[in-house]
Amino acid sequence: MPCEAIRLKSVGSFFVGGQTATVTGLPVEQRSMVLNGHPREVDPNGEQVYGQMYVQAFRLAQPRHPHPVLLWHGGGMTGCTWEDTPDGRPGWLMRFLQAGYDVLVSDAVERGRSSWARYPEVYGEAPVFRTKREAWLTFRLGPRYESAPAPRHPFPGQQFPCDSFDRFAKQWVPRWPGHEAMILAAYEALVDQVGPCHLVAHSQGAGFAAEIARRRPRLVQSVVGVEPGGMPAASPIGPLPRHLHVWGDFIEASGSHWINYRRQADAYLDSIRATTPVSVIDLPAEGVRGNSHLPMMDRNSDDVFEHVRAWLESSNPRPGA
Amino acid sequence: MPCEAIRLKSVGSFFVGGQTATVTGLPVEQRSMVLNGHPREVDPNGEQVYGQMYVQAFRLAQPRHPHPVLLWHGGGMTGCTWEDTPDGRPGWLMRFLQAGYDVLVSDAVERGRSSWARYPEVYGEAPVFRTKREAWLTFRLGPRYESAPAPRHPFPGQQFPCDSFDRFAKQWVPRWPGHEAMILAAYEALVDQVGPCHLVAHSQGAGFAAEIARRRPRLVQSVVGVEPGGMPAASPIGPLPRHLHVWGDFIEASGSHWINYRRQADAYLDSIRATTPVSVIDLPAEGVRGNSHLPMMDRNSDDVFEHVRAWLESSNPRPGA
Repeated sequence: MPCEAIRLKSVGSFFVGGQTATVTGLPVEQRSMVLNGHPREVDPNGEQVYGQMYVQAFRLAQPRHPHPVLLWHGGGMTGCTWEDTPDGRPGWLMRFLQAGYDVLVSDAVERGRSSWARYPEVYGEAPVFRTKREAWLTFRLGPRYESAPAPRHPFPGQQFPCDSFDRFAKQWVPRWPGHEAMILAAYEALVDQVGPCHLVAHSQGAGFAAEIARRRPRLVQSVVGVEPGGMPAASPIGPLPRHLHVWGDFIEASGSHWINYRRQADAYLDSIRATTPVSVIDLPAEGVRGNSHLPMMDRNSDDVFEHVRAWLESSNPRPGA
Repeated sequence: MPCEAIRLKSVGSFFVGGQTATVTGLPVEQRSMVLNGHPREVDPNGEQVYGQMYVQAFRLAQPRHPHPVLLWHGGGMTGCTWEDTPDGRPGWLMRFLQAGYDVLVSDAVERGRSSWARYPEVYGEAPVFRTKREAWLTFRLGPRYESAPAPRHPFPGQQFPCDSFDRFAKQWVPRWPGHEAMILAAYEALVDQVGPCHLVAHSQGAGFAAEIARRRPRLVQSVVGVEPGGMPAASPIGPLPRHLHVWGDFIEASGSHWINYRRQADAYLDSIRATTPVSVIDLPAEGVRGNSHLPMMDRNSDDVFEHVRAWLESSNPRPGA
């Protein structure tokens, strides 16, 4: 893999979307807000912003492709999905920059630097927090989970660096089920602001990317769903930008949850196949065994990246192009 | 100001600190967690990580200084403090990279990509959310705040780009008063991992930086407190790394809250002055008028940056050096 330096014109960030809620009726307190601070008035009532999305933009001095790559993470995660792997290797952010793409990494609404809103006053309920057990099973790392100090048993041939599982656990964030409309509104605003772009999205984010491609078929150039979770309703629609789905291993061994997600994603591609170029990279079917739900963090993350890059740079026709 | 491209060896991230709490006794639910997803089991009970800190690392291909700059944001903010200003100009992250420093930007524990823990099960209470009124007054933008559609009245000569105040509002995040020990533990772990470094910290973060300099006087090379809020208790201590405090305008006009913070910071510098080189840049006293509590976002952010850079690159002696 390339290890050359990258020349950046800029690194910075911006926000898209968001609205203002006004909170009333909460008690005013006197609190110290800093180290050894004098107590001061803390009035929680007033205008608060929510629904916005943080976007970090890496702009190359000399990009080699006309359109940027937008990296969208999955549920319970943030943009750091695409940074160094839990065992400390460069992630796909660095690889896309080295491959000559401008890259924009977002934290989905209510996660990471996008912030979140108080509940029950603005959001209706508390979020869902990821547990180690849920992650171990959902990310298809092993057939069952035992709490420490019991040893964890990965699937045979597992590519995820399971020795770094506890480090990986530090990047999980809570999320709110049922907030899809608000999250999609911000992604839509992002694509409107950025213009023509490729979407590379993981898990829950891949469902959002497929939906945004339906809403903005002329702006979105490509949709790469890495281990997609969730899909738009498969209703009739005209030509869409080309789609690629990438799948790892251990799906059958992980039970109905993953069999359902895979079935839903396959059915969605079938529903658009008549008018839209669709591709599937089933890694085990191609002889690449052992990938988890996190191929951008697996030990062979650079190999899987090369599959994605080759597809992006292939001459798959755009519908109507 | 420089507008040249930067050559990066790498951009990535890592986490420091963190511990595991085990949650029990909460109800198991069936929820859809993705777009049009089949409901699946969501079990909130089990091991969850909290207290960790996210650190994004920008490493130059050819740094021109031996030690990196660590950028620590203030209360209710994240690392995006240092990225593009709310009106879209390059921030101090970009300026430090252009000046030849490796830069590490962290999100303090429980903010941004560092995530947070459920309450009341792990944290004891709900956090404090910033309101527009609180921000307008605390950041010393104007003498009083009126909700929209009433016009907002900045202080005369205000350098903050008040037309972008609503965009600025999108970067606020909640915070928990009283979590100082947990936050400091992560900063301490960061400095231990990074080694010799300069700390450039804003507001609440500047109080933490001063405390970490006391705990790691041989690793920390310089402490720049930009508009510091909060300080360590001024107890006797041996020589510390050199300290710089930078102050903007409108302190007296903003009432007791800011007069107290300034007094506390001045008293702290007095308490270490006998053995430690201390400097204060009082911008209005130097004829630079109109800066808010956010000089890294003010219209003259590049000028204030140059003051900080010049001090960092000056030959102020280190105690014992």
